[in-house]
Amino acid sequence: MLIVQKYGGTSVANLERIRKVAERIAQYKKKGHELVVVVSAMAGETDRLIKLAKDITPEPPLRELDMLVSTGEQVTSSLLAITLQSMGYKSVSLLGYQVPIFTTDLFTKARIKDIKIEKIKRELSENKIVVVAGFQGVTEMGDITTLGRGGSDTTAVALAAALKADLCEIYTDVEGVYTADPRIVPNARKLPKVSYEEMLEMASSGAKVLEMRSVELAMIYKVPLVVRSSFNYAEGTLITEEDAEMEKVLVSGVTYNRNEARISLYGVPDKPGVAAKIFGPIGEAGINVDMIIQTGRPDSKADLTFTVPRTDFKQALEIIKRVCEELGVERIEGDDKIAKVSIIGAGMRTHSGVANKMFETLAKHGINIMMISTSEIKISCVIDEKYTELAVRALHEAFGLEEGAKEEK
Amino acid sequence: MLIVQKYGGTSVANLERIRKVAERIAQYKKKGHELVVVVSAMAGETDRLIKLAKDITPEPPLRELDMLVSTGEQVTSSLLAITLQSMGYKSVSLLGYQVPIFTTDLFTKARIKDIKIEKIKRELSENKIVVVAGFQGVTEMGDITTLGRGGSDTTAVALAAALKADLCEIYTDVEGVYTADPRIVPNARKLPKVSYEEMLEMASSGAKVLEMRSVELAMIYKVPLVVRSSFNYAEGTLITEEDAEMEKVLVSGVTYNRNEARISLYGVPDKPGVAAKIFGPIGEAGINVDMIIQTGRPDSKADLTFTVPRTDFKQALEIIKRVCEELGVERIEGDDKIAKVSIIGAGMRTHSGVANKMFETLAKHGINIMMISTSEIKISCVIDEKYTELAVRALHEAFGLEEGAKEEK
Repeated sequence: MLIVQKYGGTSVANLERIRKVAERIAQYKKKGHELVVVVSAMAGETDRLIKLAKDITPEPPLRELDMLVSTGEQVTSSLLAITLQSMGYKSVSLLGYQVPIFTTDLFTKARIKDIKIEKIKRELSENKIVVVAGFQGVTEMGDITTLGRGGSDTTAVALAAALKADLCEIYTDVEGVYTADPRIVPNARKLPKVSYEEMLEMASSGAKVLEMRSVELAMIYKVPLVVRSSFNYAEGTLITEEDAEMEKVLVSGVTYNRNEARISLYGVPDKPGVAAKIFGPIGEAGINVDMIIQTGRPDSKADLTFTVPRTDFKQALEIIKRVCEELGVERIEGDDKIAKVSIIGAGMRTHSGVANKMFETLAKHGINIMMISTSEIKISCVIDEKYTELAVRALHEAFGLEEGAKEEK
Repeated sequence: MLIVQKYGGTSVANLERIRKVAERIAQYKKKGHELVVVVSAMAGETDRLIKLAKDITPEPPLRELDMLVSTGEQVTSSLLAITLQSMGYKSVSLLGYQVPIFTTDLFTKARIKDIKIEKIKRELSENKIVVVAGFQGVTEMGDITTLGRGGSDTTAVALAAALKADLCEIYTDVEGVYTADPRIVPNARKLPKVSYEEMLEMASSGAKVLEMRSVELAMIYKVPLVVRSSFNYAEGTLITEEDAEMEKVLVSGVTYNRNEARISLYGVPDKPGVAAKIFGPIGEAGINVDMIIQTGRPDSKADLTFTVPRTDFKQALEIIKRVCEELGVERIEGDDKIAKVSIIGAGMRTHSGVANKMFETLAKHGINIMMISTSEIKISCVIDEKYTELAVRALHEAFGLEEGAKEEK
């Protein structure tokens, strides 16, 4: 089999951990598999480098920031290749520009455009374990880019798709995907299998185990994905196409996301093209708008509320103020003390009453719902941030997700 | 003027030092100069990275070692570009592969083959200060190489030559070139000016202020070189073509080199091609042989003694043992407790008796001379390592090099 493995920052935090990772890779190699290994920077290294830049200036130029930060993965990939060679395995490390992995030039948030697989294929054919520095790519002009946080997952899945790998394993410091964050819900269950769609909804609504873009990519290219721990040999969670078994489960998990902020515009002129004028500049700045609610008013104006990542709140607000002055919007309001709780399950497609149960559960605990958004297999509610844990625990219990509860149903 | 500046590790040891460097660069920029700035890794960083690799295995694979170590200069160059931009100056950092600086593939000791100047010229024409990561290059296959210790000096001089720069300034933590190492000879004098040839002989015989290869390059391409401190604004030492004034000085400096080891071969078959068989494999391993002495014997065999850098002693000895077995050499001897002291001066060309004065001075202090080598403007003696300081001080005094002595002559 051709297997792409990705090891996150805690999995390669020091030389001892890198040794453990190399031993695991060696086991796969001995079984005859071809291996492409994607590594993150050592835990804490990316933050250390960003801090260096921010100690110079609060908003460092992004091209230079990518140049700086990409060294983290470069160090890990060479250290892992050295370790593998010291154990007697042929290995070579490759940077983004060496593969090459071509991206857009939106520095710090670049997107992969094209991966050339010839060099990797050649190295594999020479029986080498190919170690690829995650998180980084290169523009057509030769500038180094990074793919944003969680970018190493994206590197791994994109490589698996390009190479038509049989499996993509994401090694991290948790054992898999849980029904809820075990730090908040101690009796949360590890899920043996979830569908791409469910995982996508979980990731988009706050589950940190996998970055959304990497799940999207895996879904599009049908890359079988396994999330598991590099600290033990427990089986992880398989993320794959939906099957009949999954449909039976009403709700698979409860997620939350505190990285949310709300922006409300009151008295927006209700005419064609207004939405584009508001959301165009935000999109151009690379800020993702999540939920949008628009309500009409009798005076042919509208009120508009939407959410953005809290980390982009300040920047989004500045853009919006500029745009709204032009449009003659009456009033702007911002709130970054909100959270989004979501329930996700493939079974929602065929079951009704799930939404109502969610609203009732929150109401029973005195939690006010500010915004609601739904998809076929997800319901999200924006609430006051301080109720986050309470809401997650209440929903986890209400939908019978706790350890042992499943058998009783 | 187009000026290439190079800042060494102590000059960019931390963000505060980088800020100071940026302020100096800004002064030049304000005067209207075009600037290409080459930086080393932050002091200690290269050693830290090498130690990481050697903690994995005593002899890490060299391609991966270069991949690892080159991150040091990458970090500094981006940090300097960020600092310059935060001060309002347009700037861009470039890595070896981005310039590109093409080298041979002798990893950790690569040699520059070709520098493409188009990209740098383009960035300069956009009024940018171009920051280049020193010490690194790229092979035609796209692998990262490093140029060996002191490689950032070589990067700077090679760039100055390729760009036909008006001046190349090497900033370091000493104020210039001295008549002797001030740590050993406290009353050593700073030289305002030395010739390329003198500097070359000084560098080749142990003066650490400049790497030999960079002086060689500067001499070939007639790049005016200034060595000065980034810690103050004192004038440095200008290294340039020999002029009449320089010829008047009998001896310009005394140097020493402890990074020496001696290998002696007794009973070497004295027939054509033997020397090539011995020194060929050593050269192929990238080891520089310095002094060679061959003495004939009545039995048509010869004794051969030569020196290599102490850091390559072990490797050289292994190669020699293998070769000598084939050749039927009687006995091999090695000694790495030696030092080389040298006196250098353009004036030697036109004065005699300098060598004799050197030998007499060493003899007067009871120092035995093991090997002698001379050039037009240098005399070197290999002695027992323990006499190094004594020899340097005695020669410095004998040739009247101390502060104040010049005026009396």
